[in-house]
Amino acid sequence: MLNHRPELTDTAAMLMVEAAREHALSLGVPQNIAVVDAGGRLLAFCRMQGAKFHSIETSTAKAVTAASIAAPTGGAPADFGLMLGVTTQGQFTNLKGGLPVIIDGHLAGAIGVGSGSPDDDIAVAQAGIDAVMRALAD
Amino acid sequence: MLNHRPELTDTAAMLMVEAAREHALSLGVPQNIAVVDAGGRLLAFCRMQGAKFHSIETSTAKAVTAASIAAPTGGAPADFGLMLGVTTQGQFTNLKGGLPVIIDGHLAGAIGVGSGSPDDDIAVAQAGIDAVMRALAD
Amino acid sequence: MLNHRPELTDTAAMLMVEAAREHALSLGVPQNIAVVDAGGRLLAFCRMQGAKFHSIETSTAKAVTAASIAAPTGGAPADFGLMLGVTTQGQFTNLKGGLPVIIDGHLAGAIGVGSGSPDDDIAVAQAGIDAVMRALAD
Amino acid sequence: MLNHRPELTDTAAMLMVEAAREHALSLGVPQNIAVVDAGGRLLAFCRMQGAKFHSIETSTAKAVTAASIAAPTGGAPADFGLMLGVTTQGQFTNLKGGLPVIIDGHLAGAIGVGSGSPDDDIAVAQAGIDAVMRALAD
Repeated sequence: MLNHRPELTDTAAMLMVEAAREHALSLGVPQNIAVVDAGGRLLAFCRMQGAKFHSIETSTAKAVTAASIAAPTGGAPADFGLMLGVTTQGQFTNLKGGLPVIIDGHLAGAIGVGSGSPDDDIAVAQAGIDAVMRALAD
Repeated sequence: MLNHRPELTDTAAMLMVEAAREHALSLGVPQNIAVVDAGGRLLAFCRMQGAKFHSIETSTAKAVTAASIAAPTGGAPADFGLMLGVTTQGQFTNLKGGLPVIIDGHLAGAIGVGSGSPDDDIAVAQAGIDAVMRALAD
Repeated sequence: MLNHRPELTDTAAMLMVEAAREHALSLGVPQNIAVVDAGGRLLAFCRMQGAKFHSIETSTAKAVTAASIAAPTGGAPADFGLMLGVTTQGQFTNLKGGLPVIIDGHLAGAIGVGSGSPDDDIAVAQAGIDAVMRALAD
Repeated sequence: MLNHRPELTDTAAMLMVEAAREHALSLGVPQNIAVVDAGGRLLAFCRMQGAKFHSIETSTAKAVTAASIAAPTGGAPADFGLMLGVTTQGQFTNLKGGLPVIIDGHLAGAIGVGSGSPDDDIAVAQAGIDAVMRALAD
């Protein structure tokens, strides 16, 4: 009748944002960083000085999409991804830079990063994932 | 032709969120905490475990409103405030818990807090304001 | 089969914005000023320094409403006005400060003003109306 | 904790709109002209007689995008630009005709022009930029 699944606390979400922010600083690329829960609701966010403000929306949509599909964003065929974006009014995005937080095979939340190049965005999101995985392993 | 005004950095915004979060923990009231720039664009955010997720919207709207009016939220007459909310599609809110960051007489941003009672929300927002003012005075 | 109706040119719309702006300056009340055509589409706009940015939406909605009803805004019973606002998703507003431009009994456009008190908003909108009427009489 | 940056006054924004409008008249191409602040909020606007009314949205989106990216619009790869537009629900546009106002290396606002050809739109936007730069140099 019931499932149980792990959920990120706000402590974990803030840790992810801070770790992603530090990595973005080390790359010299200001970013928007969004962390959402498994239901795609915002948990933590930071927009760094110099990051594009329209990426408030893209970083959040990336995190929401990664939570929805429980997978990294950007893998849909281009036309299909665009149609999904149109149909969901931007809620689904095929932009790269969203990664799910998977713990013991269960979705616990997701992170989305936007304002840099796709590679920068992925690297900064991964830094957030790595930080929470390290903390959980301790 | 030009004005000059101060703007919160992401360091200031994260400091405000962290200070507000600590105060909310000390009150035992989980909160949504949003910090925006002077133009009402999101800078930093945290939703604490147990806080209502619809207050993602209310806390952000409180911060946006406090930035727009450069004053605390909640002071409009009830009917007028409701009409402003409807006309702006929720961008303006008359809910209490939004406070502007005023530096040397200039608006630098705002904080909005939502999920507790109005008094709790104001107190937690004020903790964020106090933290940034202390940091600037150092 | 056809009606003919007067339409504001952009010259008329800019004249209205400038006249309203000068009156707002003389009152010491910064304002958002929007002029729309008879179909409620934006023709000219100015947000003065210090005016609330959420009033970009309210001033425009006031102008749109005054064009739609071909009458000043704010005259609906409170409950009915609020319901109209909700039903039109903010397109109709019962806030005061929107005035139609009526030329020889025909609607030619409308002006909406927002950020001050209701009386200020109406006075500034009226200054815009007066300016275009004077210009037409010349 | 704080940054300081220049902001366009409404005097500067109206000057930009007027200069752009004159250039559009000289080209015989009616235009929509939008000027926004650094946060992408509308400061001044004019739709000229004969300009497409849907370009109210495109001209404004161009100005908002140029403010967000602090660069001219239209430079993203086609697929990526389209996806950004969908994800931000039209807030980001890859259409040409948006230019930032950069003063001493700082973003102070942006202008967007729409209804003509891409080259016309860019030329009219540039006329607005030129006017404010000349005024600041005086």
